[in-house]
Amino acid sequence: MPQHLTVDEVHNLAKSILVKHGCSDGHADAVADTVSAAERDHAHSHGLFRIPGYVESLTADVVDGNAVPVINELTPIIQQVDGKNCFAPLALKAGKDALVRAAKQFGMAAMPLIGVHHFSALWKETEMFAEEGLAAMAFTAYMPTVAPTGGSKPFYGTNPMSFAWPRKNGLPMVFDQASAAMAKGEVMLAERDGHTLPPGVGITADGTPTTDPSEVLKGCILPFGGYKGASIALMIELLVGPLIGEASSVEAAKRHGSVGGPPQGGELVLAFDPEKFGNADGWADDAESLFDSLLSIDGTRLPGARRQSHREDSLQSGVDVNDGLMEQLNKLLDI
Amino acid sequence: MPQHLTVDEVHNLAKSILVKHGCSDGHADAVADTVSAAERDHAHSHGLFRIPGYVESLTADVVDGNAVPVINELTPIIQQVDGKNCFAPLALKAGKDALVRAAKQFGMAAMPLIGVHHFSALWKETEMFAEEGLAAMAFTAYMPTVAPTGGSKPFYGTNPMSFAWPRKNGLPMVFDQASAAMAKGEVMLAERDGHTLPPGVGITADGTPTTDPSEVLKGCILPFGGYKGASIALMIELLVGPLIGEASSVEAAKRHGSVGGPPQGGELVLAFDPEKFGNADGWADDAESLFDSLLSIDGTRLPGARRQSHREDSLQSGVDVNDGLMEQLNKLLDI
Repeated sequence: MPQHLTVDEVHNLAKSILVKHGCSDGHADAVADTVSAAERDHAHSHGLFRIPGYVESLTADVVDGNAVPVINELTPIIQQVDGKNCFAPLALKAGKDALVRAAKQFGMAAMPLIGVHHFSALWKETEMFAEEGLAAMAFTAYMPTVAPTGGSKPFYGTNPMSFAWPRKNGLPMVFDQASAAMAKGEVMLAERDGHTLPPGVGITADGTPTTDPSEVLKGCILPFGGYKGASIALMIELLVGPLIGEASSVEAAKRHGSVGGPPQGGELVLAFDPEKFGNADGWADDAESLFDSLLSIDGTRLPGARRQSHREDSLQSGVDVNDGLMEQLNKLLDI
Repeated sequence: MPQHLTVDEVHNLAKSILVKHGCSDGHADAVADTVSAAERDHAHSHGLFRIPGYVESLTADVVDGNAVPVINELTPIIQQVDGKNCFAPLALKAGKDALVRAAKQFGMAAMPLIGVHHFSALWKETEMFAEEGLAAMAFTAYMPTVAPTGGSKPFYGTNPMSFAWPRKNGLPMVFDQASAAMAKGEVMLAERDGHTLPPGVGITADGTPTTDPSEVLKGCILPFGGYKGASIALMIELLVGPLIGEASSVEAAKRHGSVGGPPQGGELVLAFDPEKFGNADGWADDAESLFDSLLSIDGTRLPGARRQSHREDSLQSGVDVNDGLMEQLNKLLDI
């Protein structure tokens, strides 16, 4: 029987474990925000499930749980945050006000994040800016797992991008999607459960298309949508690597050992103020008309709607955490 | 036997026809730049083949061939161009210097284009900024042809996005890709030639997946890569519609008649100066290392490389234009 926790209890549990294992209060709080938001939205793969990995990275001294992120104003609209080897959430939080202020003054601004370890989903980050009335894009790269078009070696990271659009009444529209056709974890689940994969998800080690998850795990996951997904993965590598002075997926993997979660890497957040792009009086209603028109077609929904649909319920009734995970977490608390 | 023209002759032919049909010298020149660049790079579907459509739009008074684009500085980094109902190329050209200047001063800048008719490929436009040392993204929407996820009615335009990255030695890396799984023209060619389509390209009018091109033409083309491509298509609708005060694909189609090429719509160009994002000394070499590392994997190439590979050859030896098209173009010149 799974255990039942309120969202606040999830937050407190995550925070206590992180503090116990050497995180400052600020880092523990920021990471716990991310973890509890993920549980709240039933994005369990980015929730408590990740805590043992966070702890491992602290214990192995891969991540500095006490680092103090530094903001560097590179230009009035480029607010760089150097995480000094910390978890990404506090770095984001540290730079947030500067990015919001710059975007509201100039209409657009960028936050390059360097020296951070990005463990989690991007949607919470773009949504945070949409809640301030800004549209936002975020990109990050992560460990080579995806084959480039024509090749059969892992090269691109899962390389997610997220986009959020603010809405005057209701939650922002937010999507967050990897450049990989399928998450590695899902391929592993398919192997465990004896399922075949949809075509186009992966190739064998010698580059032959296959629907066998074991073969894909020995071979490569493909980018989503063929060469077009690969182009987006390459764009993301350039934006969070060479552009901002961080490592590409391939380089990050080289300099990183095999323990302690994701390697140090980069992230780029872009924020846009729709009050400043020439349609101050119309943008909010125009977007709602667009959404209405989309939703008038049978069978459609807005990206991210399923995740958000769990939110209210979780805040009222709490979330389930499976026994095995709770046991593991309680052990981490007692160490 | 096809006729053989130099790239300059292609330019002159395109320009003469457009002037003959009521374009100002500036518009004719800017559109001819685009058309001849497309022929030069063997992107024939955006080359001379489009001229009859341009002429039709002038003749039907859908596009104003004498409009004078106006630049509005909405903020120091948002340089709006109002095309006043013109073809996109001259509007782009009109705003170019302002965008480059703003991006080089602040590190990043945006050009929302409103009141333009976009007939052509985006790659030439982002490449133009990459030649000035900037990375660039461009987005535009176009006529509902693509089904949203879960739906079986056309809703999204083909909605291309382009990204260009400047390189110190050699041509920029440039990709340009529609959010549709396949261009409508390609589906029509498959029908004509009796070929089936790859799975995932389209659905019948009642939403059933099919590989029969005739059924797809009666039904819908799908976004590339399933729901992820659809998310990108929606993001593009928001960026070139509500954000900048232009029509979404669905609205543009409603207010547009059935003649005269693409409806008036919007475009958004973002430019990034890699000298200003915290890696001024490293970005160029870091990107080359990334490209080298990608190209060291057998079977890979950079996006856009095939198109660019034709360039030198075309500039030296000219391009072929098929007889039927030449006949049609000569008639337009004689009217």
